Amino acid sequence: MKPDWIAVDWGTSRLRAWAMGPEGVVAEAQSAEGMGQIAEGGFELALLRLVWSWLGEGPPVPVVVCGMAGARQGWHEAPYRNLPCTPVDPQSLVPVPAEDPRISVRIVPGLAQPRPADVMRGEETQIAGALALLGHFDGVICLPGTHSKWAQVSAGEVVSFRSFLTGELFALLSERSVLRHGLAGEGWDEEAFLAAVSDGMSHPQKLGSKLFGLRAEGLLQDLPPAVARARLSGLLIGLELVGARSYWLGQSVVLVGEEGLATRYATALGAQGGQVRLLPGPACTVGGLAAAMGLIDPSPPAGGRVP
Amino acid sequence: MKPDWIAVDWGTSRLRAWAMGPEGVVAEAQSAEGMGQIAEGGFELALLRLVWSWLGEGPPVPVVVCGMAGARQGWHEAPYRNLPCTPVDPQSLVPVPAEDPRISVRIVPGLAQPRPADVMRGEETQIAGALALLGHFDGVICLPGTHSKWAQVSAGEVVSFRSFLTGELFALLSERSVLRHGLAGEGWDEEAFLAAVSDGMSHPQKLGSKLFGLRAEGLLQDLPPAVARARLSGLLIGLELVGARSYWLGQSVVLVGEEGLATRYATALGAQGGQVRLLPGPACTVGGLAAAMGLIDPSPPAGGRVP
Repeated sequence: MKPDWIAVDWGTSRLRAWAMGPEGVVAEAQSAEGMGQIAEGGFELALLRLVWSWLGEGPPVPVVVCGMAGARQGWHEAPYRNLPCTPVDPQSLVPVPAEDPRISVRIVPGLAQPRPADVMRGEETQIAGALALLGHFDGVICLPGTHSKWAQVSAGEVVSFRSFLTGELFALLSERSVLRHGLAGEGWDEEAFLAAVSDGMSHPQKLGSKLFGLRAEGLLQDLPPAVARARLSGLLIGLELVGARSYWLGQSVVLVGEEGLATRYATALGAQGGQVRLLPGPACTVGGLAAAMGLIDPSPPAGGRVP
Repeated sequence: MKPDWIAVDWGTSRLRAWAMGPEGVVAEAQSAEGMGQIAEGGFELALLRLVWSWLGEGPPVPVVVCGMAGARQGWHEAPYRNLPCTPVDPQSLVPVPAEDPRISVRIVPGLAQPRPADVMRGEETQIAGALALLGHFDGVICLPGTHSKWAQVSAGEVVSFRSFLTGELFALLSERSVLRHGLAGEGWDEEAFLAAVSDGMSHPQKLGSKLFGLRAEGLLQDLPPAVARARLSGLLIGLELVGARSYWLGQSVVLVGEEGLATRYATALGAQGGQVRLLPGPACTVGGLAAAMGLIDPSPPAGGRVP
């Protein structure tokens, strides 16, 4: 089976690929060979290992890659495109020299905002996919994750965006800080989460002491790990929501992401009176890569671009 | 040379000891065998390695230990004393069974505050030392560090305190997060630091996006590492200062700590109109351990305890 083309999402910690046929996805594969795990010069081989069985005789298969593979320390640098602009542009894909004649690889550039300085790599593709799924959409797209993004989209273009270090803070605090002792296990307490979101939003200046308080309550009052974990998540998401308030207050918000995390954001926003729609991350990635290939129109003209 | 007694500060990452004579410190020693580096059952040996040359024939040398050695995962648990109380109490030292007949070891208990839940281990001893150095002092003692403490002291007692995870956040973000790429080296930019303190205080809700902004400015605008490092420190200290405002606004504040960090806090507080005095951490530790031994009075009675 040789696909029409191959869609690839190459993040810091994971590599995912989809074999694409005329009707869409025909096969998918993934590995833990994210950008962070790959030594210089090892990218092509890591990709070939994952998609080997999809390759064959004849003309090379087009491969379109989004994510950190386009960073300076990635496979091949794809310079950022500057805002305001469409999330992806088939004319701006950056060709990558590949040794294997069976593939023809191009990378989707990330987006940059000069002031306040901000960057994204990978999320622009998900935004394009979300726009394709939504049809005409003016509003805000939130992409929770290691570095959450809030993007204002208008007439098919990304107008502004802001990143938050929320996911990375959660990972560092829950795995590497003194708080890890009180967070073991997988449990979850939804009520504690929502209370902490509200607390984090109302008192962002108390973050440092609320964080240490989780440790102290663990020592003095045997705070259950499920409550501590939910409260840590809620404090950090609450801090993000209050910092991103101008993006969601009174706006139509679409959340794109992996199910668990995006659901948490949806619950938190819903409790604050936010209007939210959820879209699955992988579908947006694949749709955005198809838009980058020029196979679908990410910003239907009927949306009415103001001249 | 056999000392009258031995003062020990056993933190998470360092072990420090002072040989004490009638006039004060006669020798000191330190090692990297902090609590975190020592396996269960290894504490006595680590201490003996450090103070071996100070031991000799005759009655055992009294050893008084403060810090994390008294934690549950430490050498021997010393249960917290509850607020309000004097920072140390010679009657409350917890004897530690030692195998070597040349030493007689006791641990200074930490302090606990039930609501809001908070704990300290080691800082209570520095507070006692600060009170001994200051004579009569009612006001606030701030101890910057991995888990900074702000303690309200009145009539020789610790009345309330609050911990902030500031130092640990700085270490995690500067060494283990995506920000580490832009923070290499040792430089410092005082102006950027003070601007970031002010920024962190004015907009605590923007912490997550300001943090990612350091990375983005590094990528897009070649932000110098010295500026990035100073700004990260300033944002986190600013967040702490606004969270601890009720502790320092209009109060007489004494800062206790290692020179570099305490000086940063003093500069930051000074820029906000705070009145600050600096005391050196080690002198406070040794003085506090002397107070715990009952050798000096940590709260001179003339201070006038209200009946």
